[in-house]
Parts: sequence; C-alpha cells; structure tokens
Amino acid sequence: MKKRLLVIGGVAAGPKAAAKARRCDPEMEIAIYQEEDAISYAGCGLPYYISGVIKDREELISRTPGKFAQDGIKILKNRKIEKIDLPNSTVSGRRNGSGETFTDHFDRLVIATGAYPIRPKIEGIDLRDVFYLRSIFDADAVLERIQSKDIRNVVIAGGGYIGLEMAESLVHLGKNVTIVELAPQILTLFDEDFAGILRQYLEKKGVKVFTSEGIQALEGKNGKVTHIRTAARRLNADAVLMSLGIRPQVELAKQAGLRIGETGAIWVNEKMETSAEGVYAAGDCSETTHLITGKKVWVPLGSTANKQGRVVGVNVCGGNDTFPGVIGTTIFKTFDFNAAKTGLNMREAEKEGFHPVQAIVRGFGRAHYYPGGKESTLKVIADKESGRILGGEAIGEGPSDKFIDTLAMALHGTMTARQLASVDLAYAPPFSPALSPIIVAANVLMNKLEGKIEGIQASEVRGKLKTSKENFQVLDVREEDEVKAKRISGATWIPYGELNKRLAELDKRKETAVHCASGLRAYKACLKLQQEGFENVKNIDGGMLCWCYDVETNPSKEKA
Amino acid sequence: MKKRLLVIGGVAAGPKAAAKARRCDPEMEIAIYQEEDAISYAGCGLPYYISGVIKDREELISRTPGKFAQDGIKILKNRKIEKIDLPNSTVSGRRNGSGETFTDHFDRLVIATGAYPIRPKIEGIDLRDVFYLRSIFDADAVLERIQSKDIRNVVIAGGGYIGLEMAESLVHLGKNVTIVELAPQILTLFDEDFAGILRQYLEKKGVKVFTSEGIQALEGKNGKVTHIRTAARRLNADAVLMSLGIRPQVELAKQAGLRIGETGAIWVNEKMETSAEGVYAAGDCSETTHLITGKKVWVPLGSTANKQGRVVGVNVCGGNDTFPGVIGTTIFKTFDFNAAKTGLNMREAEKEGFHPVQAIVRGFGRAHYYPGGKESTLKVIADKESGRILGGEAIGEGPSDKFIDTLAMALHGTMTARQLASVDLAYAPPFSPALSPIIVAANVLMNKLEGKIEGIQASEVRGKLKTSKENFQVLDVREEDEVKAKRISGATWIPYGELNKRLAELDKRKETAVHCASGLRAYKACLKLQQEGFENVKNIDGGMLCWCYDVETNPSKEKA
Repeated sequence: MKKRLLVIGGVAAGPKAAAKARRCDPEMEIAIYQEEDAISYAGCGLPYYISGVIKDREELISRTPGKFAQDGIKILKNRKIEKIDLPNSTVSGRRNGSGETFTDHFDRLVIATGAYPIRPKIEGIDLRDVFYLRSIFDADAVLERIQSKDIRNVVIAGGGYIGLEMAESLVHLGKNVTIVELAPQILTLFDEDFAGILRQYLEKKGVKVFTSEGIQALEGKNGKVTHIRTAARRLNADAVLMSLGIRPQVELAKQAGLRIGETGAIWVNEKMETSAEGVYAAGDCSETTHLITGKKVWVPLGSTANKQGRVVGVNVCGGNDTFPGVIGTTIFKTFDFNAAKTGLNMREAEKEGFHPVQAIVRGFGRAHYYPGGKESTLKVIADKESGRILGGEAIGEGPSDKFIDTLAMALHGTMTARQLASVDLAYAPPFSPALSPIIVAANVLMNKLEGKIEGIQASEVRGKLKTSKENFQVLDVREEDEVKAKRISGATWIPYGELNKRLAELDKRKETAVHCASGLRAYKACLKLQQEGFENVKNIDGGMLCWCYDVETNPSKEKA
Repeated sequence: MKKRLLVIGGVAAGPKAAAKARRCDPEMEIAIYQEEDAISYAGCGLPYYISGVIKDREELISRTPGKFAQDGIKILKNRKIEKIDLPNSTVSGRRNGSGETFTDHFDRLVIATGAYPIRPKIEGIDLRDVFYLRSIFDADAVLERIQSKDIRNVVIAGGGYIGLEMAESLVHLGKNVTIVELAPQILTLFDEDFAGILRQYLEKKGVKVFTSEGIQALEGKNGKVTHIRTAARRLNADAVLMSLGIRPQVELAKQAGLRIGETGAIWVNEKMETSAEGVYAAGDCSETTHLITGKKVWVPLGSTANKQGRVVGVNVCGGNDTFPGVIGTTIFKTFDFNAAKTGLNMREAEKEGFHPVQAIVRGFGRAHYYPGGKESTLKVIADKESGRILGGEAIGEGPSDKFIDTLAMALHGTMTARQLASVDLAYAPPFSPALSPIIVAANVLMNKLEGKIEGIQASEVRGKLKTSKENFQVLDVREEDEVKAKRISGATWIPYGELNKRLAELDKRKETAVHCASGLRAYKACLKLQQEGFENVKNIDGGMLCWCYDVETNPSKEKA
C-alpha cells in the first residue's frame, strides 16, 4: 500500500521536506497542512516587501499550490491542526472560517510548525498600530498602515536582526525611527565592539538607539498606540514594531508527548527524527547541535530550515540522511552595512571555556589601488591553547558575506590559525587584496598565539583610562592627519616614524596600550617598545576601527 | 655579530620577506637588490593601469624605498645580480648604466627573481608595437603607444588571464580586439564548457576569438608590426600584445647549483628553503606543492608570493614556519564577467586518476525576489568513489569570488559532497538564496554519487547528436517561452508538466539526455522516465547554462 506523509506547516522546512520526499518516492501520498492562507513564502523577505524594495507580494511566494499539485503534493490551507494522536497515527483539526473538524491518517509525519513572535504581557500591548513581523499577513498589516502620514514616529522594540532590518525600511519610508533594546547593546549576537560600530552607523543614519532600556508599557488614545515607556523615558510612538524575538511553536508536539529539548524546541536526532519513530521535525520549531560547542541549540533560520527539510524528505522515504548541526552563521543588512557572524564571539567563547584571542583587521574588498572598494571591519577569533578558529564577525559596507562564509568553512574544517594563514583564496585586484583580510587576520592571530604580542580590547582600555591612569598609558602612533580627525582622549601621540627619538616621552614601567588605525603600525611600535625594555606592552585590538567611545576631534597641535 | 640578509628581487615575495624578517629580528641587516628602477609594485594591477581604471602610476606602488628605510631595510635599485657564490656566501653584479660591479656578503639569502614573459622565436618578434605585460615598465611602454589613433587593431596572442583582462582594457580604449589562442579553447585552466560560456560572452562584447590557431609570424613595415599570421589567416595588427604565458626566472639559481624542480622552477621544501642551507626562494621563481594531487607545481600568483614571503621572513630569522602548498585557486575579471576556479577541473581530475562527477547550477547572488541580483554559473566537482570535493569553477556576473573562496576552503578541509551539503553559510535575502548555490551543487552531487541520476556533459551530447541519432534522443522539458528563445537543434520538446501524458513521443530504448534551463526540472523528469521504464536516462550537466554549441533561436511552434 502507498505510504501517506503528512506535513504540518507550509512555509519553509515543510514544503522542502514534501518536495524532496516526492523526488525520493514517486508513489507516496503527500499532503501539507497549513493554518494560514499562504504557503511556501519567504519570511526573510518581509522587511524588503515593507520597504518597497520588493514591489510585488507574489515575488515572495516560492511555489504556488499549483506547482505542488504538478508534483502530486496536496496543499491543505486554512486548516489548523489541533492534535497529533501518535498511538492512532492521526492528526485532527479544524478549518478556519467554517470551524469544520477533520481527522487524517499518516504513516510518516513531519512537524514544521515554525516559531511565533514574543508578545510581552505589558500594559497596552493590544493597542492598534502595534505590529509584529513574522508571517506574510503581519507584513500586510504593517504595509496597510505604515504609509499613512499619521504615522511619523515609529519605535522598534528590540535591537536584533528584524528590528535592524526594519529600521532601514522605515527610514526609507520617511519615518522617525527609535530602537529600544533591553540589553546593554544592540545586536547581542555580536561582541560589544562590533555592536558599537553598528550603533554609531545607525545614529549617523538618523536612527535613535537606546540600550539597557526595556519597553515597560505602551500608552494609547482611543485604542491606538501613542507612546511607549521605558524606565528612563517616554517616547512618541505612532506605531510600534515588536521585534523582541521569537519562540519555537511546540504546543502540538508537547501535547503529543514528544520530547522537548532544553532549548525549548522539539528534540530531534541527527536524522531529524523526534522521540517518536516516524515523526520528524524540521525548521524553526526544532533544535539542533552547535558544532563548535557540541551543545543543543535553537537557531531558527530559513537556510537551516531548507537543509533540514531536505534531510527529512530523504528519511521519511526510508533514506538515511543526517543534519549534523550549525555553527551559528548569520547575516543581515541595514542600510549599506553588512553585518555577519559565524561561530562564537569573544563572550560566548569565554563562556564555553575557551581562551579566545581576537584579531581585528581592515576587511578590504579589493586591492587598495583598485577603485570603488568597500571595507568591512573583520574579526577572527581563535583559541589560545589549540589555535583552533572559533568564530568571526564582519561589519561594514564591504564583503562581510564572503569573509564570513570563508570563516564558516574554516570552522567546518576545524582549522587552526596556522592553517588559515596559508589558505589559497581567489586573488585578483577587483576581488581582494593580494593577502586576503582573512589571511591577514590569521597572521595577527599567529603573532598573538606565539606570544609575540598581546592584545587588549577597546572596552578594557576605556576602563583603564578612567580608573588607573597612574599605571596605564595609551600610545597613538598614527600620522597627524589621522590624529586630527579623531583621537582617543588622554592618548599620547607619537607618529611611528618618530618613535625612536621620542621614547623618553613614555614611561617604561607603565602598562602601555598602543594603537594606530587598525593595527600594523601599532604592532611594529609594540615590538620596538618591547625591545627598548617596556615591561607591559599591548596592541589595542582593531585600533581606531572599533573604538566606539569618547573621542576628541580636531584637537589643537599643542595638545597633541 | 649582526646577521646580514640579502634579498634578490623587489616586487612581491622579496619585499614581503624583508618586511617580515625585520619584524622578527630588529637587529638583522637587510637589503633588497632590484634590477629595475621600481620596487614593491602591484604587477596584477597593470591591466587596470593601462585601461585607466587606475589613474595614477603611484597607486601601484605598495611601499616606497623611504618606507622601507623607516624599517631599516635598504633598497638597492638598478643593480643586476649576475652571480650567487654559495661557498663564499656572496652575490655579485653590476649597476645599470655605469656598469660598475659590486660584491656583497650574506648570511641568509632570499631569491625572489620572479618570472619573465615567453618570447616565441618567430619571425617579426622584434618589430615595434609588439608588447608584453610583465613589469611596470612594460605597462609604461604599452601606455605610451596605445592611446595613439594609429593603433586601431590589436591582436592579443594568448587567451589566458592577462590576455583576457587586457581584452577588456583595450575594448574600453576603443580598439578592435582579436584573441588568438593555440589551444582548442581560451582559458585552458577551465573546462571546455565554462571556457565556452566566456567565449560567447567575449564575442558579444565585440572581441574576436580564434582558437586552435597559434601565432606563426608577425609582419611589419618600417620596423613596425602591421599583421600577424596564423595557420588559418592573416590579421591586421597595429599592435600585438604577447601574453603567451610566463616562465620562472631561475638562471641565477641554476648557475649557483641550486636544485631546479621538474616544473622548471626552483625547488624548495615546506620551509621555502632551497637545496642550499640558508638560501630561500619565494614567489614566481619557486615551485610549490599542489595539495590535492600532492605533486610539485608551478603556480605563479601574487597572493601566493606574499604568503611565501612571510614564511621566508620568519625562517631566515631562525623561525619554523611552513608554506604547505596551493590548491590552484585563481580568479580574473573581464568586462563584467568574474571567472574563478579552485582545485582541479574535470579534465585535470581525470588525468590525476580520480573519477570526477560534476554539478552545474545557477549561482544566484541573492534571493530570487531581491532585486539587482547577479548570477554566475557554478560547477562543483567531486570524486565518485570517495565523495571528496575536487574543485570548482564559477563564471558570470555573480559572486564567483565568494563561491570559489568557499569551495577553496572545502578543499582545504578535504570535505566530501555530503559534508558540503550541510555547511552553515550566511543567508539573508540581499546576500544569498536560502540554499546557497554551493549547497544546491552539493545536493546535485549527492544525487549523482548515490546513483539516483547520471549526468552527461554537454560536449558528449553534442557528439552523440551528430553521430548516433538512432540510439540517442535529447529531451527538453522547459516552458514555451524558454524554448522560443534558444533551443538545442534536434531536441524533443515536452514541457515538464506535460510529460506524463506525452511519454509516447519518446523511445524508451534510446539513451535519453534530458535538460531544462539548469537542472532541477530535468532531474525530476529523469526520475519520471526511469520510473516509466526508460533504460538509459541522463541529465545534461548544467542544461542550457553551458550549452555553447549550435542552437536554434525562435523556432516555429510546429517544429517544436
């Protein structure tokens, strides 16, 4: 008899699993249940649909029900599954609108119920013009209102990806945009320094950013939102976009008695099979393994959902495919900034018991002499003991995506900094400097791992400048024009070329943190100082590239 | 006593070795001998200097002698080293101009003499307006003449990188450009199909291309070139650019008795040390190891030179760094086409004893719905037995560099197709489809490796269409608009959606090669045909993406 495959959820992982199953087994009966009136759409494209970058809603639809029908896959829309009955191998539910109930039998079941946005239980949360951005219908709701001239001030609650992508969209639509984030920084997946770079950039674009300030209440008039309140302030808000994150949709799985992991998402093995035989889960509702830490994690992403969907499609037909896990690669764009990350950041690496060291370099996209090049700031992190690459971040207008994909592959290959220093990457002037920034970063890491130089993070420098000036000095070895544009308050300025003859201006016994624009001149200066008997010399990671704190601009020459 | 390091060669590897040695040893005496009057310049930038993309010659100079002096590195320009005396640890030579001789002592020696362009011994080779493009002075010579209105027809001898980069530059300068290549295809590092894509593109840009036609003689008048001759034709040539390749500059090393490898370049070990202790070689004059084949190769590239220079810089100071080798990654741009390669191509893989299978897919740079996306055609090659990734090629206006860097890392990590299918690459709509083309290609490879489908190369299809029509049929499963634009002569057209009811139009006993635009519909059609009892079904690798042979355009519906 023909086997019957039911898929619950029709956005990404579900349709992928169904399509792959069809290719593996032309005989199987396949149906996809979907609660909404739309299937197989690009959730990640919604911010661009709202901004008008994507003009036509239809473009977001990957595959129509007709295309599925061509492959013999039945789409059952507007049907909410309410129960999975494992002993009887059935699902049952209710049609939207009519409320008519139904029951369906399965031989194999795929749960791809996705995730839902967090709705905090705060005052005013049900006011009008408070939006979410999860489904295509959420986007429709935003679009219907956002063009209105009544909506001038928009507050985005949450400084994560969706919030930051939407900040761009809303500024393009002419809105005054404010981001309110509970954590001490936006972009909490990144280290403080890189989040700081992005924050400065957003502020230049006219976006107001408040951190360490959770949204406490929404205020309204006639049922419509007018203000939001944080612990520190009350802000005008003609509309609020709630982007506080999402949670896996696991109610059905829970009711069915399937194992839920510690992450709160559905537990699955490497074959994407749940705790019940023949029942699979994939996409945003399921957890996976972090390949660097070995721990279970919940990292909901459209790319992962597609890969998992394929594995499930193979396995429901009796195949033996596996999805080993993720390494936390992620990217987004806001305005012209590309922000990407893979693996662990410094904070995460420390938490996991590694001893991370970082290299921060200028991530040029072309040879220096080839015009039109864009630049991202690039960070690569390695473990001090093993030399293993642990992660990286890239942010800026340059090819952050290329850098991070390259690093992601280094992580998959469990490479060390030494190995990374000699990889054979594509070089021609329109595509890269002769030494890829990835390789430059690996070389900087090597210098640190071999103990030639010690680094110090910008945040630590800032702290020491405030608290321990008698034991600590900052040396700036840049040229005059660079120093005039921007300098760290309290730093001693001696251009690299004058260092030999002006060493007396520095105190050898103090801890000395050296910086230039990004790191090379500072590195050479550090070597010189060490040679001259300075006892405690450090290179400020990333130099001025990620100094996001107080600066003096255009100081007088005397002062310098 | 201070050690003395001499470096012969001042373009890429030499200066890099010197700079790194200085950072490793602040005491060492370091001098660079350079025959030319310029040092530390970007040889790879010369085509762009000629086209005017790079306006200022100075921009090509990475570091001036003054900068070297700041680090205590002496630049000895305009001095030709004529002899290395290993027993006495000296080099001797002659100053340009004055002819004054000199001898210098070394403790450590670095040979970075680079490569020289091939000058074929043919009639007319010494005529005026016959140019090379190796040194910055070659570029000066081209620039001085090329703007002249007398020079309208330019023949480029050699269809390799420099020739193809120059084709763009010359077309931009308003010249009629013809490429003459001895091999049966331009771009011999790539497979025939991908070279074919590029050839079609160049021809659209107005570049004439003749293959299987070596340049046999140059003809001239009053000492100036006017024509070139091949076996097949005589072409007007107001100027000729000879870009037939380069050879390693090993005369000095040979005279000194250093071991020369089978590749013709200087033999070195992993530490970049030659057969004589304390004497190192790096850059275009030295050979290295191909990490896929394990064989010694000579792959002269600026990126490799820089990495090798660094290793030498460490080792001349007593360090213990290694350069393991290369994987043959390479890239260039011509017009808006980015052509990149890593590892082995199909031909090379077969020659090395692998059983290569290939996947050719559309390499989108963005989600399909995100506007402004560019596309490259992407090929990934794996070994049928081990599943190991062997190489890849990417060509087109899309992010070929990103694809190839990602694949290069897969090669460094000795990944299999299965591993590559689940890598965690950066996804957001402005940067990639949800499934990276790399992953799509890995999935196609998996289908082939698991025997679900067999591929057939376009060239083989073309051959069989000509010679064995009675046993062979081509099935085109695209839609009408696609077929109208371009179709393979002799193919049977049945849109995928009509296949079920029109199977009778095909002969089950014939070998059936199926294609669509790139591969997915053809794959599904192949599965259907296999299920229906077709005995020998194959998917044409890359579909119409790399069908570079005879096509019919706009055929009548009847004919279809």
